[in-house]
Amino acid sequence: MQNTRILLNQRPVGTPSDECWKLETVELPELNENEVLVKTEYLSIDPAMRGWMNEGKSYIKPVELGEVMRALGIGEVIASKNEKYNVGDHVSSALGVQQYAISEGKDFVKVDPNIFPLPAYLGTLGMSGLTAYFGLLDTGMPQEGETVVVSGAAGAVGSVVGQIAKIKGCRVVGIAGGQDKCDYVVNELGFDACIDYKAASLWKNLKEACPAGVDVYFDNVGGEILDTVLTLINKKARIVICGAISQYNSTQREGPKNYLSLLVNRARMEGIVVFDNAANYGVAVAQMAKWIKEGKLNANFHIEEGGVKAFPSVLGKLFAGENTGKMVLKMTE
Amino acid sequence: MQNTRILLNQRPVGTPSDECWKLETVELPELNENEVLVKTEYLSIDPAMRGWMNEGKSYIKPVELGEVMRALGIGEVIASKNEKYNVGDHVSSALGVQQYAISEGKDFVKVDPNIFPLPAYLGTLGMSGLTAYFGLLDTGMPQEGETVVVSGAAGAVGSVVGQIAKIKGCRVVGIAGGQDKCDYVVNELGFDACIDYKAASLWKNLKEACPAGVDVYFDNVGGEILDTVLTLINKKARIVICGAISQYNSTQREGPKNYLSLLVNRARMEGIVVFDNAANYGVAVAQMAKWIKEGKLNANFHIEEGGVKAFPSVLGKLFAGENTGKMVLKMTE
Repeated sequence: MQNTRILLNQRPVGTPSDECWKLETVELPELNENEVLVKTEYLSIDPAMRGWMNEGKSYIKPVELGEVMRALGIGEVIASKNEKYNVGDHVSSALGVQQYAISEGKDFVKVDPNIFPLPAYLGTLGMSGLTAYFGLLDTGMPQEGETVVVSGAAGAVGSVVGQIAKIKGCRVVGIAGGQDKCDYVVNELGFDACIDYKAASLWKNLKEACPAGVDVYFDNVGGEILDTVLTLINKKARIVICGAISQYNSTQREGPKNYLSLLVNRARMEGIVVFDNAANYGVAVAQMAKWIKEGKLNANFHIEEGGVKAFPSVLGKLFAGENTGKMVLKMTE
Repeated sequence: MQNTRILLNQRPVGTPSDECWKLETVELPELNENEVLVKTEYLSIDPAMRGWMNEGKSYIKPVELGEVMRALGIGEVIASKNEKYNVGDHVSSALGVQQYAISEGKDFVKVDPNIFPLPAYLGTLGMSGLTAYFGLLDTGMPQEGETVVVSGAAGAVGSVVGQIAKIKGCRVVGIAGGQDKCDYVVNELGFDACIDYKAASLWKNLKEACPAGVDVYFDNVGGEILDTVLTLINKKARIVICGAISQYNSTQREGPKNYLSLLVNRARMEGIVVFDNAANYGVAVAQMAKWIKEGKLNANFHIEEGGVKAFPSVLGKLFAGENTGKMVLKMTE
């Protein structure tokens, strides 16, 4: 049986170009004892992927040149020599950008398509949702009545952050690119307001939407938006640094010029990596599943079609901000 | 009786020029009931003064144009219509850049020149020492065996931070400008190492001095030094933002380009303002006085002579980094 896959061929400078990738089709080996063959159904398309392509020390080891590009995914077990997994099981794991993955299943998490649609397990009930949950609650520490601002508000993590903050009784203001996304964030996700950063006067609009200032800022974007929010924070504010999508493809990184607002306001800026909370994933997933069932949490996702070959262009769409909710790549050709 | 004083005459752009100041001599009014006349003996010369000269919201209201320039100081009561203060008492207070201050004494703290030299009450036992104490212990939270790096290591705050970190059993590495200061920091203050940021290869030297990485960074300077330390922090590091002397006179502020190291390392950057700890000043001063008496803490200071008229040039010397230890201005002409 043949397996089409994408390898990391070259490290990118700035925005990844076609030369970064190598598409190839290889014959699948026979399964060894304890191994499982998984047919990939959905891949999770994440801003973090850009970081994995870089050389150097980070919170996770880089993808090596010539290695299958790392990707989380959901698939179906189609052959098994491991008694823990049966044909027909659905599992979530780091399957990689390929049609089939062979694994001993040590990092597999079983998921049930009869309870939630499969992409939900990559989004709200997967790493994106867990990042939102722990980042907001443990590091942002929002209190009832406080104002929470979140950038990338229509994205996989931001959309969950804002909804959880609403559940916790906060005033929630999103920042997103374009009026359509803003309408979605307010009308479908229930945020109190959402500011289009592409429109004029981000500062003025944000200030009006946060009449009591900003107590928690959950940042997915960095750059000018982070700098703008820094001018509006309250005393003892908490800024959660979850990502900086504006910077990932930049060859000239910018720091937050207004970081001394941390000093004036005795405020805190703290980075998070979801893996640190692995021991508590189960509790968080159970809580979020309950909120989804109660209609309090919208497990939104954005499906792109096209399978392995479409991966480079779909990753580009993510960085262009074309998704609303979790972006997943469906593996049907 | 006449009082020579310096008013804020113009707000600075960049480095304060002579036009910012107005020197004048006025007749002192008679004391009203409850008032005290204090003859200024020492003024505290602080980087924070530059911030007080700016318009706009900060952690303390700005000095108004035409107002006596704000300065902490120590003086002797030479006349009193307030039963709490007797002639001959020494007090610490926001006396301002002037020879004499008249006050009802509500913010006075009595000090005793027989226990410690008067400048020590402005430095290690004053706001500088308190800033070091609370910033390091409450926000930096150093644990025994951890590596603590402090910039401005020969300065009023940094010199105390490093010495307290040594008392707490940490490896302590200073950053200072020039070999003389570095020698002083190691030989007189007992730091494990001190790196001259004016010499080549700050990064390389700092990396060698911190073989186990950086757990706590107490930052008084900002700019490139902050950016360099950010590349060397450990997981869960704490960065205390106390000041940014490299930025105060800059018309083009720079943010820390490497702030995403906070994310990779799940680290925290937090601003501090000493006033928030006012309820606990007494405990901290008692502890530091004990350490001084035990010979564990060197209450170092740097005295400039010249009185009120010398204030603008002495402030310039502070920003040029000419002091070792707390800089005070002695009020004798």
